[in-house]
Amino acid sequence: MHAALRDVAAKIDRVIAEDAFPETIQPAFLRDSVRDYPGRGGKRLRPALLIWCCGLLGGDPRRAWGPAAAVEVWHNWTLVHDDIIDRDAVRRGVPTAHCRLRDAVAAEPFRQDGREAERQGMNFAVLCGDLQQAWANHLLARATESGLRAETVAGALRRMQELGGRALISGEALDVALSLRPPQEIDPAEVLEMIRLKTGALLRLAAELGAMVALDDAAPEREETRKLGDFAEACGVAFQLRDDYLGIFGDETKLGKAVGNDLREAKPTVLLLRALTLASPTVRRELLASLHRPASEYTPELLAQVRQWLRECGAAESVAADCLKLAAKARALLNTFPPNGYRDNLLEFTDYLTARER
Amino acid sequence: MHAALRDVAAKIDRVIAEDAFPETIQPAFLRDSVRDYPGRGGKRLRPALLIWCCGLLGGDPRRAWGPAAAVEVWHNWTLVHDDIIDRDAVRRGVPTAHCRLRDAVAAEPFRQDGREAERQGMNFAVLCGDLQQAWANHLLARATESGLRAETVAGALRRMQELGGRALISGEALDVALSLRPPQEIDPAEVLEMIRLKTGALLRLAAELGAMVALDDAAPEREETRKLGDFAEACGVAFQLRDDYLGIFGDETKLGKAVGNDLREAKPTVLLLRALTLASPTVRRELLASLHRPASEYTPELLAQVRQWLRECGAAESVAADCLKLAAKARALLNTFPPNGYRDNLLEFTDYLTARER
Repeated sequence: MHAALRDVAAKIDRVIAEDAFPETIQPAFLRDSVRDYPGRGGKRLRPALLIWCCGLLGGDPRRAWGPAAAVEVWHNWTLVHDDIIDRDAVRRGVPTAHCRLRDAVAAEPFRQDGREAERQGMNFAVLCGDLQQAWANHLLARATESGLRAETVAGALRRMQELGGRALISGEALDVALSLRPPQEIDPAEVLEMIRLKTGALLRLAAELGAMVALDDAAPEREETRKLGDFAEACGVAFQLRDDYLGIFGDETKLGKAVGNDLREAKPTVLLLRALTLASPTVRRELLASLHRPASEYTPELLAQVRQWLRECGAAESVAADCLKLAAKARALLNTFPPNGYRDNLLEFTDYLTARER
Repeated sequence: MHAALRDVAAKIDRVIAEDAFPETIQPAFLRDSVRDYPGRGGKRLRPALLIWCCGLLGGDPRRAWGPAAAVEVWHNWTLVHDDIIDRDAVRRGVPTAHCRLRDAVAAEPFRQDGREAERQGMNFAVLCGDLQQAWANHLLARATESGLRAETVAGALRRMQELGGRALISGEALDVALSLRPPQEIDPAEVLEMIRLKTGALLRLAAELGAMVALDDAAPEREETRKLGDFAEACGVAFQLRDDYLGIFGDETKLGKAVGNDLREAKPTVLLLRALTLASPTVRRELLASLHRPASEYTPELLAQVRQWLRECGAAESVAADCLKLAAKARALLNTFPPNGYRDNLLEFTDYLTARER
């Protein structure tokens, strides 16, 4: 799978770099910003999912590159706006869009000072994401050129607004809204729904578009399309549950981020919320007291203690079991299709997302 | 025309209010926000332009309501993001989206305090505009249901990204970028290009979509489509030149806003920049000194003096002449089409946009 993934990434890098849509964007520093995230490379997991779902159903992958690039650019605009919302300064080791735009506004010929440059950097980053959203739609609308029926393309565009737009953005908004409430007032089911929307919907879109290209039919109720959508959504939710699990139980050197961050930020993960439901009143109080502390207080001793609490109340096991169940569901859905190389890739992709250590 | 405009507005209000896309948006306060601006009514000039261009070419207006609603919702998402960028508090006498969302975040169950509520209100307003952009695309993608060919719909969606997305957002970005530079360093041609993109592109889109619906063909190079696009763009640029002219020479009681605002904000209008080019060095210095002052200093005497400077150097006349020329071009383009009631509406629309007093 990893070699196949690298092939997809190389091809998608090229499709995105060669697409002419951004060329006439003004001013020039905004044009550069629109191309920035989509050009930063990365694993291109969503395009691979789309291409392989298309191939699984015997479709011609050459017809799928435009839609695959569209889903990747779509993913990138959501990152640009997420980074504004989270006020993040770094993405993949490089300054975020609004930080780079802040620096552009602070330089010639604008020479804005600190606070104003900061504000205008955010403003331009809002517009950068808006432009990328239009670019993604344009990439998909152009898929008629590769021989797909216009009915398929119009239906795929409609589905992109429903899943990539309505569902994903609702998920992002729920995530922000959840972060503003005390964890003990949140039902774990609310978090699961947020994950399904924020992470699951775009993977579902990628899989469905792959099926739509293969079938040259955009009806989301087609059995193959629905099954591959369900498969991808299950992978997405399992991926996020695993991510939250590794955030506490993972190996810091493998993860490349500090274990304990989720506790410091009081991130309402399913793992934490389930523990708050299952634990004794005493442990519950201790767990709540372990949130929102200064970074220096997350000593190996405190983290070991939190891990023990999460294990003893059964929350850790319960989340790990959910993750395994979702992965099994995803594999079972894939196994209803006849075997081919694409199916092998997708099965390996499932393990990669749901059983990873980093 | 005004009765026909009211009919369009009433029908568009209904199409937008009844569309199901926003129903499943979460959380509920964000769903309300997505419906807010598009539901506030208003003149619905862009839908009228689209419907009438369709009718001018003998098209069935019933096929045009979906695209007309799409253009109106598109216009509204750009307003939501514009209001964030300008930090405006009021739109049509009602709090702006980010202000309403700030209040939602300050209330139960979030109870965020002032600064944090402000920040999160902006964040949710970014997502509100993103959702409306997806909604607009969805409305257009659904136009296949009214009997349009899928080729037409896919092509129309592509054009919406080029004009409503790339061109309009570039115009908005240029507007922000221009506001960060000293007026004396700006070429009036840069401002004209900004206006063409920011105001002209969406009117061009509305007119082109009307033609595409009538012809059931999305090729933007079709002669009727191109001509109606040129007509609408000319109206848009003339409208904005007139707006800037009225900002200095208009009647405050008719306009409902303070004459002098543009000077206080040092808005780089074509009118001001042309005066800076044409005036004597002394008057040029005086004009520059009349910018960026506290509101109380814009006395009737100072404003009368500025008006005299703008007239004496020929800038006022030159901008008024440009406006007349664009209106004449728009009318001439319309008059190449056989007369019907829709053409009468469009001719009156041209006068309404380019010769208004308020």
